[in-house]
Amino acid sequence: MQSRFADGTLDKAGEPLPRFGGATFALRFRLARLGWTICWFFLAAWTPSPCNLWRIWLLKRFGAQIHPTAIVRGSVRIWWPGNLVMGQHASMGPGVLCYNVANVTLGDFSIVSQRAHLCTGTHDVDDEDFPLVSLPITIQANAWIAAEAFVGPGVAVGEGAVLGARAVAARTLLPWTIYVGNPAKPVRLRHAAGTV
Amino acid sequence: MQSRFADGTLDKAGEPLPRFGGATFALRFRLARLGWTICWFFLAAWTPSPCNLWRIWLLKRFGAQIHPTAIVRGSVRIWWPGNLVMGQHASMGPGVLCYNVANVTLGDFSIVSQRAHLCTGTHDVDDEDFPLVSLPITIQANAWIAAEAFVGPGVAVGEGAVLGARAVAARTLLPWTIYVGNPAKPVRLRHAAGTV
Amino acid sequence: MQSRFADGTLDKAGEPLPRFGGATFALRFRLARLGWTICWFFLAAWTPSPCNLWRIWLLKRFGAQIHPTAIVRGSVRIWWPGNLVMGQHASMGPGVLCYNVANVTLGDFSIVSQRAHLCTGTHDVDDEDFPLVSLPITIQANAWIAAEAFVGPGVAVGEGAVLGARAVAARTLLPWTIYVGNPAKPVRLRHAAGTV
Repeated sequence: MQSRFADGTLDKAGEPLPRFGGATFALRFRLARLGWTICWFFLAAWTPSPCNLWRIWLLKRFGAQIHPTAIVRGSVRIWWPGNLVMGQHASMGPGVLCYNVANVTLGDFSIVSQRAHLCTGTHDVDDEDFPLVSLPITIQANAWIAAEAFVGPGVAVGEGAVLGARAVAARTLLPWTIYVGNPAKPVRLRHAAGTV
Repeated sequence: MQSRFADGTLDKAGEPLPRFGGATFALRFRLARLGWTICWFFLAAWTPSPCNLWRIWLLKRFGAQIHPTAIVRGSVRIWWPGNLVMGQHASMGPGVLCYNVANVTLGDFSIVSQRAHLCTGTHDVDDEDFPLVSLPITIQANAWIAAEAFVGPGVAVGEGAVLGARAVAARTLLPWTIYVGNPAKPVRLRHAAGTV
Repeated sequence: MQSRFADGTLDKAGEPLPRFGGATFALRFRLARLGWTICWFFLAAWTPSPCNLWRIWLLKRFGAQIHPTAIVRGSVRIWWPGNLVMGQHASMGPGVLCYNVANVTLGDFSIVSQRAHLCTGTHDVDDEDFPLVSLPITIQANAWIAAEAFVGPGVAVGEGAVLGARAVAARTLLPWTIYVGNPAKPVRLRHAAGTV
């Protein structure tokens, strides 16, 4: 409590704390993100599936490390390309939300299906200032995040793992294992285990 | 059954029942709602984050009881502002769906994160006419409804309670308790309990 | 493995396999689907609730078997009308996603509420080529798929069954039974059982 100014609504620099309406990120980064959002909206969001190489090119300009065979649909929303790594033939389907405040890494041939949510951000609920906590998401090769599934902050998805439609993963998913439900629970091994 | 007209598809006033395509609400209210929807679409839905005071002003014109420090993003969808109460620093993040057929009340410093759904409407599944049932949602101070969570009709969220990402609450949530899953189950107390 | 060409990235006709960026459907069908998507976007997606008969007419032109009393909101997204069957007073609410790669059949008076997802497509996770598998969804008369629920491939929803808000059905739902949760579990019988 000693670290607060005046009425406890300001941080050490005298700026409002986030829970009092203050900003979490520096102005310079917020402007870069604004530029990115505008670029994607006007140049890519409406482009049909076959314009994939154009979208990959655009993502690279904003700092994404992305293989030319990766697939990103126009309706995908990426928070910041500089925090995105995609291997060969990795793909994000229509309406995927990639909220990559921390890094999101998609291994070779990993698939993120339509309207899935990769969410790297949360808040420290045990800190009274409720600060943003961001933890990277890593999805290994050949894993499949099915339609409308949710991958939480800090989750590592093992090679070839499957997160079923609408399933919600808050913890590490073991390789070549199929998970369903909210919260996600393992149901069986994938028979293709080790053969791809 | 005696209350029905003719072939059982009309109500007492001779209007079609909702399940036969009839309207649930009176024409006058439907027109007011249409006006609200058009206003928000043209005047607020596309406005960026910093235009918050303008959106608060607009919500007040349509009957919302809302503190000037509350935060409502442009991409929020509110069914009817007249059924909305928001305390100081209460906030609704990007893409929140506030389906407030009955009242929705957000206490001071309560946070509803991106794409969460506050749903006050359901249907009486045990009545053959399948009538709309709407029950208020009350979210107490300092509670957090995390990303893409769902709060059902009649739910009371206690002070400081946390409903995790994608969790689905159909019942009362106890104060300073963290819930996850669908259906939501308590996992632990919040360590900040009572200290905010 | 013998059926593959060259480096294993091509099918028997020499086209790239889907997981190497190849197409799942024939060009002719993809063009028909493109035509449908464009038609709905420009002619129907923005139309308000009362223009229902116009939308039904449009769906019929593209092959839907649909009763004139059925209700389809403009914000509904239908993958292919030729795979859609809707009985009298069957309805799909705002934002429903009908991903009908295989047939979707809605019985008389069945209701699919806002933002529910009827998903007929999945992938064979035990086949190293990860082929698309599509299985029909059948929803019997008087059943209710509540807001934001998810119905998976091959699911048969029995007469009068209820799938609660946000619930996820991967298996057959018994008649006049109420299911909630992810995965969906039965909670009780519907008291209107057999009386509608």
